[in-house]
Amino acid sequence: MSPKILTVKENILASNEEKAGLNRKLLDRHNILMINVLSSAGSGKTSLILQSISRLKARYRIAVIEGNVASCIDADRISRENIPVIRINTGGGCHLDAPMIKKALNALDLDGIDLIFIENVGNLVCTADFDLGAHKNAVILSVPEGDDKPYKYPVMFSEADVVLVNKTDVLPYFDFNLDGFPEIIGGLNPSAKVFPVSAKTGEGMDSWFSWIEESLK
Amino acid sequence: MSPKILTVKENILASNEEKAGLNRKLLDRHNILMINVLSSAGSGKTSLILQSISRLKARYRIAVIEGNVASCIDADRISRENIPVIRINTGGGCHLDAPMIKKALNALDLDGIDLIFIENVGNLVCTADFDLGAHKNAVILSVPEGDDKPYKYPVMFSEADVVLVNKTDVLPYFDFNLDGFPEIIGGLNPSAKVFPVSAKTGEGMDSWFSWIEESLK
Repeated sequence: MSPKILTVKENILASNEEKAGLNRKLLDRHNILMINVLSSAGSGKTSLILQSISRLKARYRIAVIEGNVASCIDADRISRENIPVIRINTGGGCHLDAPMIKKALNALDLDGIDLIFIENVGNLVCTADFDLGAHKNAVILSVPEGDDKPYKYPVMFSEADVVLVNKTDVLPYFDFNLDGFPEIIGGLNPSAKVFPVSAKTGEGMDSWFSWIEESLK
Repeated sequence: MSPKILTVKENILASNEEKAGLNRKLLDRHNILMINVLSSAGSGKTSLILQSISRLKARYRIAVIEGNVASCIDADRISRENIPVIRINTGGGCHLDAPMIKKALNALDLDGIDLIFIENVGNLVCTADFDLGAHKNAVILSVPEGDDKPYKYPVMFSEADVVLVNKTDVLPYFDFNLDGFPEIIGGLNPSAKVFPVSAKTGEGMDSWFSWIEESLK
């Protein structure tokens, strides 16, 4: 990055952080838990959120803020669950930021919500820099992407509260060392939980659901 | 993105484009083909480049410019091939730009090279905006990422000369409609070639190698 864009980025990040803090205060006043779901493109953010809605919507009032660069495919899939969905089309932008989330929160009836999932833009780099005001960051890494990604995208993994290793149903077809993976994450981020899951088959998802319910208390 | 960062981005892009043009002229004077390899994280850029080096290095003098956000794992893998490798660590930056590539070209003996692969940062969003001075853009989408990605990241796919659908060896385990995929790409970018390949098993790679050799003529 050039020095010029770097300086602007620093200013933008400072202003973003302040607004993220305000978002978090607003949520706290309404006793809402907000979870920012981050991953590369195609790791399974939408599927994970859909499964979580399906499991938890009988007990909690859930809403989704859905970020995309261009299309509305994911928002359309989630809308079928009959819960409030706010779409943010970034128009080519590579991440969501706190002001975008503030607008989305303004469009929701916060007194009728317990839990908000943010589906961030599919991107392991830029999204990591922007605090949105969420209480938790859940990062998904899918088995086909490879177990070396935490070394290559360390900021993302060092800021995660939870790392979900998704698509464990295809483990036999890829060289992903699942046994050694918690140690890789532990080296970067000792307090992060690691949950191996398959959003497709449901395997391992109970640990993730329990963690959400614990976080809601 | 805020209006402020948007304006700076426009200026940066205009200046980048000018420098990319100069890179291309420099390469043309030395009769070098430069291919920019782009994809999300974990789609198989390094494996594709390694296979291409292995197949083509007896006939062509190859160099690699290797972009990463943080680590040097990929550059280390490629260095074992005993060809010139220039590493660019973006220090957290989400893409390569033309000035970075200019520095890398300055560090290479251009009279002794026929073909340069750039391995861009793993990112389907930001990397698409920056012309590096390459002659061709090769975009990899791997089967596990899903066939809807061109709709969701249209800029990247509309600027591709070639789209490689990688990891076809795992097609039976994923819902990826390979037969319908060329039509999706054709709708965005009618002149792009689509090559289904497995960099792991070698399946389909001959079409890719032939395309490189055609482009070298």
